[in-house]
Amino acid sequence: MENDTFLRACRNESTEYTPVWLMRQAGRYMKEYMALKEKYSFLEMCRTPEIACEVTMQPINAFDLDAAIIFADILLPLEGMGIGLHFAKNMGPVIENPVRTRADIDAIRIIEPEEDVPYLLKAIELVKTELNEKIPLIGFAGAPFTLASYIIEGGGSKNYVNAKSIMFGDPEYWHKLMDKIATLTGRYLNAQIDRGVNVVQLFDSWAGCLSPDDYVEFVLPYTKKVIDSVEGRVPVINFSTGTGTYLEILKQGGGDVIGLDWKVRLDESRERLGYDVAVQGNLDPTLLFSTPEVIKAKVREIIDQADGKPGHIFNLGHGIILGTPVDNVKMLVDYVHEYSRKG
Amino acid sequence: MENDTFLRACRNESTEYTPVWLMRQAGRYMKEYMALKEKYSFLEMCRTPEIACEVTMQPINAFDLDAAIIFADILLPLEGMGIGLHFAKNMGPVIENPVRTRADIDAIRIIEPEEDVPYLLKAIELVKTELNEKIPLIGFAGAPFTLASYIIEGGGSKNYVNAKSIMFGDPEYWHKLMDKIATLTGRYLNAQIDRGVNVVQLFDSWAGCLSPDDYVEFVLPYTKKVIDSVEGRVPVINFSTGTGTYLEILKQGGGDVIGLDWKVRLDESRERLGYDVAVQGNLDPTLLFSTPEVIKAKVREIIDQADGKPGHIFNLGHGIILGTPVDNVKMLVDYVHEYSRKG
Repeated sequence: MENDTFLRACRNESTEYTPVWLMRQAGRYMKEYMALKEKYSFLEMCRTPEIACEVTMQPINAFDLDAAIIFADILLPLEGMGIGLHFAKNMGPVIENPVRTRADIDAIRIIEPEEDVPYLLKAIELVKTELNEKIPLIGFAGAPFTLASYIIEGGGSKNYVNAKSIMFGDPEYWHKLMDKIATLTGRYLNAQIDRGVNVVQLFDSWAGCLSPDDYVEFVLPYTKKVIDSVEGRVPVINFSTGTGTYLEILKQGGGDVIGLDWKVRLDESRERLGYDVAVQGNLDPTLLFSTPEVIKAKVREIIDQADGKPGHIFNLGHGIILGTPVDNVKMLVDYVHEYSRKG
Repeated sequence: MENDTFLRACRNESTEYTPVWLMRQAGRYMKEYMALKEKYSFLEMCRTPEIACEVTMQPINAFDLDAAIIFADILLPLEGMGIGLHFAKNMGPVIENPVRTRADIDAIRIIEPEEDVPYLLKAIELVKTELNEKIPLIGFAGAPFTLASYIIEGGGSKNYVNAKSIMFGDPEYWHKLMDKIATLTGRYLNAQIDRGVNVVQLFDSWAGCLSPDDYVEFVLPYTKKVIDSVEGRVPVINFSTGTGTYLEILKQGGGDVIGLDWKVRLDESRERLGYDVAVQGNLDPTLLFSTPEVIKAKVREIIDQADGKPGHIFNLGHGIILGTPVDNVKMLVDYVHEYSRKG
């Protein structure tokens, strides 16, 4: 690997500067992406390897990022699981047959990635060729809780009443559902690793609706199962949002890197987690709507909190927001490098 | 006061049992409320003292609650501030002229409660008469951050990009806006206290989008200003959600009681906060969709974590959710009393 800074940071090894990539770095804030989006739907883009490869490379060509992430969606396994999915115009994902009953849970199929997401695996191959070992490629999956609540709620949710009704009301089947999802997610990630991704990230974007005790009982064993299933193959980033009150519990799920949102200070998080695990984060993505001066000041704060210790990957605390100015993204990436080299 | 259990718990004094009230205890989950809602819009209900009084009393008549809370909305001051507001059918509040510019901020009027919300003050008088000193009445207001982001975003928001753009991009005017809101909120609460509310609660339901450092710089001084402005008159409940990573900072804002959501354990929260301040919380409101057995088990956990120490008010971590079964609400209130008496 020409530039393995990101990989070394994932392994908690020292690096010459702080590596940086950005969640949702390929997306609607880039005009190159929007040009493609006019011709293809989101799912068409994901399911056409050449386009998924092109979109993956767009931010790599535009910014000096230390890692690429395959263009895909955490809901891609759904079709193979037997759950219909489409993306409504300006509405996000719509699940056609939400999982609500024991029969629905029993009916979920454990995917065979080679059969069910061949386009994703092919896209990974194309990107690996295109990257030509310049920087690492990240594969990813939804964490079991986020995927489970998506397929139960049938889309985004404010209170997760349906998901929690199964979780609290029928714990036997909740555990069955989560175990199935953990099994298929392990397969999904291992297939990505087989095709060459260098790191995998689990996205538990919705875990923030859970109490620490409910996380321990209903979620932790399955996140751990997924992470254990790729153990030793590539570094794992265990990412979630809204979980800063129980970082110590997240760590029990495993992962070489714990993803942090901006609700916790980086220095405090590292102290709580211990320095044997790396961290990724944690700029508030809305800051990218601000001025270069304000952004730079916040970058300095975060890098100063990291205090030159090994194992910090710079990122946002969540994905880039639609409408983010591209110039600020470029400036951010360059400034993380510049300031951390000095440090 | 016939039953001052709630007031004593607010003052961190010992009580014979754990007092309980529920955020949004008057509302759409009750058929009595829906019957009125068929005839009047939400704002009509708020602006008609007799109806606001009737709605306030509905849960008091149905359940054995230890406190009433005046039926109102945190957006009631908007009209007096010069900001148009209506409630769209099934859509929640819509702000007609969101605050986006310096001129918009300069134009905000500091309300005169007697002129601008006479209906609210009248409703408080009616409820006080109706309650006849049986249990205390809570008044409330939105905390400055939540009210500021509401009037800037013009409604609910996912990322608070507009609010944070002013906060990060024009801090001078952000501070000016927050100071104005803190001043008028102080007046608003003091007018409620003048008419007889026994406790006030500040709702910072949206503070959870802020980093601890941004909370300290952009929010804390104004929450503190509001709380200071009612100092010594009645107990204050300082409530927010999604802020469990920086409870210690919330405490600096003041308040006799810190409101907790379910993202932090009650015992851990009290240890972090110190026992010189009371706490309120912290059942996940989705649990009320579960079975009595599951709800009771969680109630026991929370009361056991409170460990018989003075200064615990039982509540949900956020408001009652639409669709919550009324029978479970009744059972919850009774069981909190029953179990905590034993303890």
